Amino acid sequence: MADPGGGRNRQMSTPTMPPALREAGMVKDAVNTVLEDFLRRKKNDAEEPQMGRLLGHFAEFLAGGKRIRPLLCVTGWRGAGGNSENPSLVQVAASLEMFHAFALIHDDIMDDSDTRRGRPTIHRMLAGKQGDDRTERFGLSAAVLLGDLAFAWSDELLHTAGLTPAQYGSVLPLITEMRTEVMLGQYLDLRATGELSDDVDATLTVNRYKTAKYTVERPLHVGAALAGAGPETLAACTAYAIPLGEAFQLRDDMLGVYGDVADTGKSRLDDLRAGKNTTLVALALRACDPAQAARLRTLIGDPLLDETGAAEIRALFARTGARDAVERMIDDRYRQALRALESAPLTPGATADLKHLARTATRRNS
Amino acid sequence: MADPGGGRNRQMSTPTMPPALREAGMVKDAVNTVLEDFLRRKKNDAEEPQMGRLLGHFAEFLAGGKRIRPLLCVTGWRGAGGNSENPSLVQVAASLEMFHAFALIHDDIMDDSDTRRGRPTIHRMLAGKQGDDRTERFGLSAAVLLGDLAFAWSDELLHTAGLTPAQYGSVLPLITEMRTEVMLGQYLDLRATGELSDDVDATLTVNRYKTAKYTVERPLHVGAALAGAGPETLAACTAYAIPLGEAFQLRDDMLGVYGDVADTGKSRLDDLRAGKNTTLVALALRACDPAQAARLRTLIGDPLLDETGAAEIRALFARTGARDAVERMIDDRYRQALRALESAPLTPGATADLKHLARTATRRNS
Repeated sequence: MADPGGGRNRQMSTPTMPPALREAGMVKDAVNTVLEDFLRRKKNDAEEPQMGRLLGHFAEFLAGGKRIRPLLCVTGWRGAGGNSENPSLVQVAASLEMFHAFALIHDDIMDDSDTRRGRPTIHRMLAGKQGDDRTERFGLSAAVLLGDLAFAWSDELLHTAGLTPAQYGSVLPLITEMRTEVMLGQYLDLRATGELSDDVDATLTVNRYKTAKYTVERPLHVGAALAGAGPETLAACTAYAIPLGEAFQLRDDMLGVYGDVADTGKSRLDDLRAGKNTTLVALALRACDPAQAARLRTLIGDPLLDETGAAEIRALFARTGARDAVERMIDDRYRQALRALESAPLTPGATADLKHLARTATRRNS
Repeated sequence: MADPGGGRNRQMSTPTMPPALREAGMVKDAVNTVLEDFLRRKKNDAEEPQMGRLLGHFAEFLAGGKRIRPLLCVTGWRGAGGNSENPSLVQVAASLEMFHAFALIHDDIMDDSDTRRGRPTIHRMLAGKQGDDRTERFGLSAAVLLGDLAFAWSDELLHTAGLTPAQYGSVLPLITEMRTEVMLGQYLDLRATGELSDDVDATLTVNRYKTAKYTVERPLHVGAALAGAGPETLAACTAYAIPLGEAFQLRDDMLGVYGDVADTGKSRLDDLRAGKNTTLVALALRACDPAQAARLRTLIGDPLLDETGAAEIRALFARTGARDAVERMIDDRYRQALRALESAPLTPGATADLKHLARTATRRNS
């Protein structure tokens, strides 16, 4: 299963963000300060010294994030007319990042992943180096628990952000939706794992819940709602976010197969070996003849797949037209996102940033 | 690791509750109705039919609980002077039960337990009957996720309970504390699992976080705070809840070793085979000579322990005075809880119920 928000989504922020989101650096710094202060307080409060090691690992993990959801939250706020410095906003943005840490930790458990953000995943780190059954078990259990703590803490950050009752009332239902959506996306992804299928719609549904809604739409919504946005503004955010988020994940799927490791930092065999049932794969299976389909099913998901096998898969993606079809889907969605911005009741600055983001998120090579 | 709230705590409510907590039946019914309605709505809302099976399992699991935390929440409310029918109260009480479902599901994953509430645990149920690696993995992952959903839903129940801003302000910090405490208790328990120790204080710390605070103190606090209780009333609840909760868990530990299976429904070999580092065990290890300690360490935690071995352990518990010491600790704490009630600014009805609960929770044989 891919992580919520897409496999390489974390790399979205580095190459694609800064020029347009002019305040990006400031936002990141402010969010980091909130998160660091929060964890420092937790460490000081912990009467039990045994908690120290756990919190240490968690602080390192949390430091590695790219803050894409906080940045979108702040963009939503600015888009809806919020403009002055606002400590409540930053803390809510930080709570989204804390929630994402929860989602990633549990996702890595579900995937049994070994690495995340270039380091061992939390459950591997907590299992230590022995790798015997007992320490494996401890690593898994402690990681489940640390994820739970991150979830609880995301809530604590939200509830101590100093929101007005009106802000509370508008933000809480959005947060509730966001949580349910990403968990539903995870569940659908989990059900689909290991079973290649030509159900293109099913792959787009997972994409929508795990990436489009969770990573793009809801962070924008939360920020806009904090600034007092009404239904019209939220609907405009959705009209932009869903196609863009889908396009973003489709680009991510493509980079997983065609990207250059020097750009993406990830082997282009990984997704194929893991047997990810992406939209690209589903389209190819749909267009294949039975012999080709059998071949794809043999190759995709083979943990020992080599470059020769991958080349054969890529040839089938080309021959079936699946590769071109995905490029067209990305382009359609990119244009749809831009059109949505044309009539959106958002401030010019935020609109410009969202336009720039749409271009870089869909045209990137990393 | 024991489940949060103690291994057999779930049985607390059945034999000990009804006569004193006169409204117990009504409270249980009302809480059940809220939970059933909530899950029915979730099932209807789920656009994805695949969610149906997951929600079905969860509804069955949730139906099995004894509602001890909701009952204590309502008792806290009545103790602080709340008296009329109150739908917000019932929904908050239901949110505590939903949170407990989350805690149990994840606890069973951490313990790798096979049964809960007389049925297969959620991760076993979701793994299905095949029991191969792949279905095991799916069961584990889906259970992590279902626990996460229950956590999110406990929050949703809380946030849609129709609380006033003042109620919100007083209840949220208590909920935050409760969550952190039970997770800290879980972590300490996890660290201690599989390592017998004579550190009596450490066993009492786990007891305090996992049972006394989580199961007794915080539910009382939440109910009392909803009724507008001030610091004095909350402190009185604490003065009662901590010693009673500790005594309750100590009784639970004793029943695990000396109980009659006809009463407890559980073999008196289970805890010994699992190697639970209870206060009883720690006291015995502390009072042993080195040869006896080595013997205890050999026997306790042996998954194949038989009745002869268990008899030898019990003889050592008696000879070292550990058994008597735990009985005295229970009695001390019971009296301390009663004394706390004497000066507590709680209503007479609630005080009588709490007195009755203290007696039955510490004198029970099941």
